[in-house]
Amino acid sequence: MRALILNQSAGLGSAERVALRDDYPMPNPRRGESLVRVRLAGICGTDLEMTRGYMGFNGIPGHEFVGEVVSTTTSALAGRRVVGEINAACGDCDFCRANMGRHCPKRSVLGILGRDGAFAEYLCLPDRNLIPVPDAVADEAAVFTEPLAAAFEIFEQTTIEPGEQVAILGDGRLGAIVALAMKARGLSPIVGGHHEDKMKRLAGAGIAAQPEDRLRTGFDVVVDCTGSAKGLARALELVRPRGKLILKTTVAGSAGVNLAPIVINEIQVLGSRCGRFRPALDALRSGAIDPRPLISGIYPLEEGLPALARASEKSKFKILLKAS
Amino acid sequence: MRALILNQSAGLGSAERVALRDDYPMPNPRRGESLVRVRLAGICGTDLEMTRGYMGFNGIPGHEFVGEVVSTTTSALAGRRVVGEINAACGDCDFCRANMGRHCPKRSVLGILGRDGAFAEYLCLPDRNLIPVPDAVADEAAVFTEPLAAAFEIFEQTTIEPGEQVAILGDGRLGAIVALAMKARGLSPIVGGHHEDKMKRLAGAGIAAQPEDRLRTGFDVVVDCTGSAKGLARALELVRPRGKLILKTTVAGSAGVNLAPIVINEIQVLGSRCGRFRPALDALRSGAIDPRPLISGIYPLEEGLPALARASEKSKFKILLKAS
Repeated sequence: MRALILNQSAGLGSAERVALRDDYPMPNPRRGESLVRVRLAGICGTDLEMTRGYMGFNGIPGHEFVGEVVSTTTSALAGRRVVGEINAACGDCDFCRANMGRHCPKRSVLGILGRDGAFAEYLCLPDRNLIPVPDAVADEAAVFTEPLAAAFEIFEQTTIEPGEQVAILGDGRLGAIVALAMKARGLSPIVGGHHEDKMKRLAGAGIAAQPEDRLRTGFDVVVDCTGSAKGLARALELVRPRGKLILKTTVAGSAGVNLAPIVINEIQVLGSRCGRFRPALDALRSGAIDPRPLISGIYPLEEGLPALARASEKSKFKILLKAS
Repeated sequence: MRALILNQSAGLGSAERVALRDDYPMPNPRRGESLVRVRLAGICGTDLEMTRGYMGFNGIPGHEFVGEVVSTTTSALAGRRVVGEINAACGDCDFCRANMGRHCPKRSVLGILGRDGAFAEYLCLPDRNLIPVPDAVADEAAVFTEPLAAAFEIFEQTTIEPGEQVAILGDGRLGAIVALAMKARGLSPIVGGHHEDKMKRLAGAGIAAQPEDRLRTGFDVVVDCTGSAKGLARALELVRPRGKLILKTTVAGSAGVNLAPIVINEIQVLGSRCGRFRPALDALRSGAIDPRPLISGIYPLEEGLPALARASEKSKFKILLKAS
């Protein structure tokens, strides 16, 4: 089948690490897994980070997708249009038994860890990871289920009261999606950005945005979606004492950020990663969230390499790959 | 009066920054403040940090004390033995009105920020900061009220269930006091240390301790009392996914600690600083906590400089200064 392949062997440059192949072997569903034909896949910041060495993953990247089940032993899934939770847990360890499969130490993660991903014509996932997509949700919206679920994860971890002042740092893909989730929950976040064109576009999607350096300190909640140590430092400036700082993006090094304000101001820092798909799908079905204005382009899979390059451009929001 | 004076003028070495003076002017209580004769004062890691430049404070350091009120307009305080909350808040701002005076942006802090402290014969504090000490609590125990209050602050910020596995990193003064507070709340923390003699001494105070490198990962709660970036990195290794990491000590630089595990493992990081005195005094009065085994020495104020040097030694717990 056709697929984008990431090869992190030593000595390869960033551009050489990803290749398009037409002869990659079809994935082979294990017991309890279904074979899914990918319809659309989304390119995420994590995918781009991986082309720069993050996670040391070799194989097919991609973890945001909507597809259709073409082979399964679970009749309820046969032929269905589905999205899929990306963490394939063992189901049997302490974490899994505590309903924390997304932290199962034996898990594989679609397109990130030990499992080929969605930048391909086909993928496999355990049946229990697959969730049928309601007819009312178009492919172009359903493909946002995974990042939206990650945004809704915030509300599984903490409570944000109506009226609390929320700032979101980062005017990129994730910042925008977190803003949409917050708005769907009745909050009025403001995105602090660096790119005039992006902030204009956010405004078009109904999201308030202004240059990050104009934000005034004292926010009850600051969500860091910048993926940079600078963002973390700025978030620590903006959050009020006893406020919450939610980290949605990983910072591999902390680059000497002064963390003393966390203690002095008694900040609660919450790391937040993947979430349940159900609340995200519900919000897409009800129309509470329509992420489609965030699509910057749809490329066929065979143009995957230029698509990845586009997704790296500062001015671009979500780039999708159409596999078939 | 006699006092230790910290002078952070540029060009002075660490040893030159602190001096003993016998002719320092007596403090002058402002409206609503009392004059307190210091009986005992404790040397804390923050005091030692300040002699190395932290906070840029000039004046009399020291914020842990027990004393007696010698001049006041509040009759209930006259002649009483007292301890004192160290944050002197404005009483009028949004934080003060929200009962968060310890975060008042206009506050002074005894011996740390804009207010002379306790390494002296006398100090001043607002009457509302002073709390009479029950007769049953000896000076040598009462002087621990401030650090104990900081330890109890953890329970104002979060809930730790009985049976949860708690590790405390750092076998120093603060780690020991946090361990005592945890035990008083029915928890069974284990201190991870680096100093055999200190760990032995902790065992003598009924606190379980073992070498930090022998701790196994998977703790529900890890409290970092090391005051070092290494401690933070180690705490991130030891805490389980979705666990809590409580920062009790400030790390001025993060020295390149990889913070990605906070997001990947969805850790809740809680900065925790000062606390209410009442729960601490209650625990001292009831005998639930007796911190006196942690005293490594009591020095007269005129030996304040050698006392500070002793407090800096790795093998020492709490060093007290007896002002009069």
